Amino acid sequence: MSSPLTGPVHVIGAGLLGTSIGLAARRAGLTVWITDTNAEHVRTAIGLGAGSPPPAGETPQLVVVAVPPLHIAEVVADALESGAVVTDVGSVKALPLDQIADQVGESALARYVGSHPMAGSERSGPLAASAALFDGRPWAVSPHVHADAGAVALVEELVGICGGVAVRLSPVEHDLAVARTSHLPHLLAVLAAAQLTEAVPEHLSLSGQGVRDVTRVAAGDPDLYSQIIRANGSVVAGLLRELRGQLDELIAAVDAPEADALVDLLDRGVAGTQVIPGKHGRPAIETGQVFVVVPDHPGELARLFADIGEIGVNVEDLRIDHDPGRPSGLVELDVEVGSAERLREALESRKWTAHR
Amino acid sequence: MSSPLTGPVHVIGAGLLGTSIGLAARRAGLTVWITDTNAEHVRTAIGLGAGSPPPAGETPQLVVVAVPPLHIAEVVADALESGAVVTDVGSVKALPLDQIADQVGESALARYVGSHPMAGSERSGPLAASAALFDGRPWAVSPHVHADAGAVALVEELVGICGGVAVRLSPVEHDLAVARTSHLPHLLAVLAAAQLTEAVPEHLSLSGQGVRDVTRVAAGDPDLYSQIIRANGSVVAGLLRELRGQLDELIAAVDAPEADALVDLLDRGVAGTQVIPGKHGRPAIETGQVFVVVPDHPGELARLFADIGEIGVNVEDLRIDHDPGRPSGLVELDVEVGSAERLREALESRKWTAHR
Repeated sequence: MSSPLTGPVHVIGAGLLGTSIGLAARRAGLTVWITDTNAEHVRTAIGLGAGSPPPAGETPQLVVVAVPPLHIAEVVADALESGAVVTDVGSVKALPLDQIADQVGESALARYVGSHPMAGSERSGPLAASAALFDGRPWAVSPHVHADAGAVALVEELVGICGGVAVRLSPVEHDLAVARTSHLPHLLAVLAAAQLTEAVPEHLSLSGQGVRDVTRVAAGDPDLYSQIIRANGSVVAGLLRELRGQLDELIAAVDAPEADALVDLLDRGVAGTQVIPGKHGRPAIETGQVFVVVPDHPGELARLFADIGEIGVNVEDLRIDHDPGRPSGLVELDVEVGSAERLREALESRKWTAHR
Repeated sequence: MSSPLTGPVHVIGAGLLGTSIGLAARRAGLTVWITDTNAEHVRTAIGLGAGSPPPAGETPQLVVVAVPPLHIAEVVADALESGAVVTDVGSVKALPLDQIADQVGESALARYVGSHPMAGSERSGPLAASAALFDGRPWAVSPHVHADAGAVALVEELVGICGGVAVRLSPVEHDLAVARTSHLPHLLAVLAAAQLTEAVPEHLSLSGQGVRDVTRVAAGDPDLYSQIIRANGSVVAGLLRELRGQLDELIAAVDAPEADALVDLLDRGVAGTQVIPGKHGRPAIETGQVFVVVPDHPGELARLFADIGEIGVNVEDLRIDHDPGRPSGLVELDVEVGSAERLREALESRKWTAHR
């Protein structure tokens, strides 16, 4: 069961993730079999080149289970009967592991190594798939304590073939990590968005980029997120209870006669934004902002970026601000802090309306 | 005191907002006087062309008070003694109005009309100023019930001259609107960010774009946001108490044996993202996403947007995703849903790695 990964790889579940893994493994020259209970998804995935139907009587080297959260344990347990190494790509790792351990023997369990690519949760279906979906994305690999070392290596090889960056974390650590970096932020975004439905519609005309950013992820599929969050329910509920304590602190701080307690809480928020790793896994670099007014029709962004390319400043991040009053956009460019003023001046000399 | 606005305009406070208003009013040909307790800020603002020192013995037509939240009421009350129309650009409107009403007579109060441009809160200082800062941004104008109609018209004329879009809301309505669209999302972002400081650092390597978006505004200046939120304290605290009820509901829903309650809450979040007005004040249009892998060096974005311009698809919004593992970026393009597939295909035919 040890590496190298030579195939065949059997992908169960021809949705966005499964089909993308099939495409990436095919790109690497591996034989891929792909199946799904939805016959149309299978036809689409095969049509895209993500694999072929499994031939009768053959055994894959690796099975990748890419089915909805509620079905993972059952499908993994079933797949382990083939004698292959089995991984899944679900968003939660501890509960499915417990469920699988209840259904299979120790030697079969040793061949199961769960994993979780940080990609694709906002889109769905095989038509959205791409071999490039995982390029440069973190991909958690979560071996349990009895996992076979060769099985772990095989799954990490799959991650590499798909272009992902393997991050090894135990199932419990993984679930705590995604509770903090994904599930809790998601639920806070939901609370921020839900209260907007109580606003007088005309009040919402004061919405700026801030509220759009805070609430964006709350647009995700409720059925899928409900399954993910409930599978990590005890961890998430524990953090939500801690959060209730912090909310009470916040209410007291807003009500307090002195500003100190609120400033302390806001300082903690600033510190939180600084611990998120920066682009390319480097420590976050200090960026400066330059805002540029861009007419809202094709070609203007191209002209802007052609000018930025000639000026020779690298854009770390950017965002188009929504403009409520007129047909033009405001583009926010994040660049290294020392280059911001030079970029602004150079853009203005090229007749762009720019400010910091 | 009625329009048209002919000047002089006296801007008190040469920070980002005051200096930007000075620049915009000068651009419109008005005489602008600019003052600040910080002599260096005044020198910088005058050097940028945002105005000149006020000559002795002359009275302005309009005074714009652009000082920190804690000082607004005192400076407005003082400015009303000149006989001019007075506005301020603070983020909260009801409390300063009460404080001003305590200090001045009825006829003076009639000349005060508060306002609040939705721009600039994440940057500060006169060096960051620009005549274009308010272009297309909502700018609340908040007359109290005894405000003189001519004074209101004069302030709305200032908004127009600065390129802003006037949104008329009473002071109480304004404060409720910004509590929901700005202060509450800000505090939820702070809670989402603050809990990250309790994470094991290696767990944060699983951070994706979602948590970055949710927490971004929490990086704002704690002293400034503390003043803003406390000035709107009773409204914000009221909403936070409602939120505590929603948080309890959420905890119960995560713990519940059935998924229905959690799905309902997540549905409410989706609805909240849909009530935020779209770009250009139009209803939000349905967008589709196309992801493109872009090498991370100057010139590549230019090449991408040149290609998009030739393909002829208009980009509604875009975002560069952070890539933890390699020196390339993933650009997310939001385009009208019907154009997404065409754009993806056209980009691939031009040798870009693109997926949906």
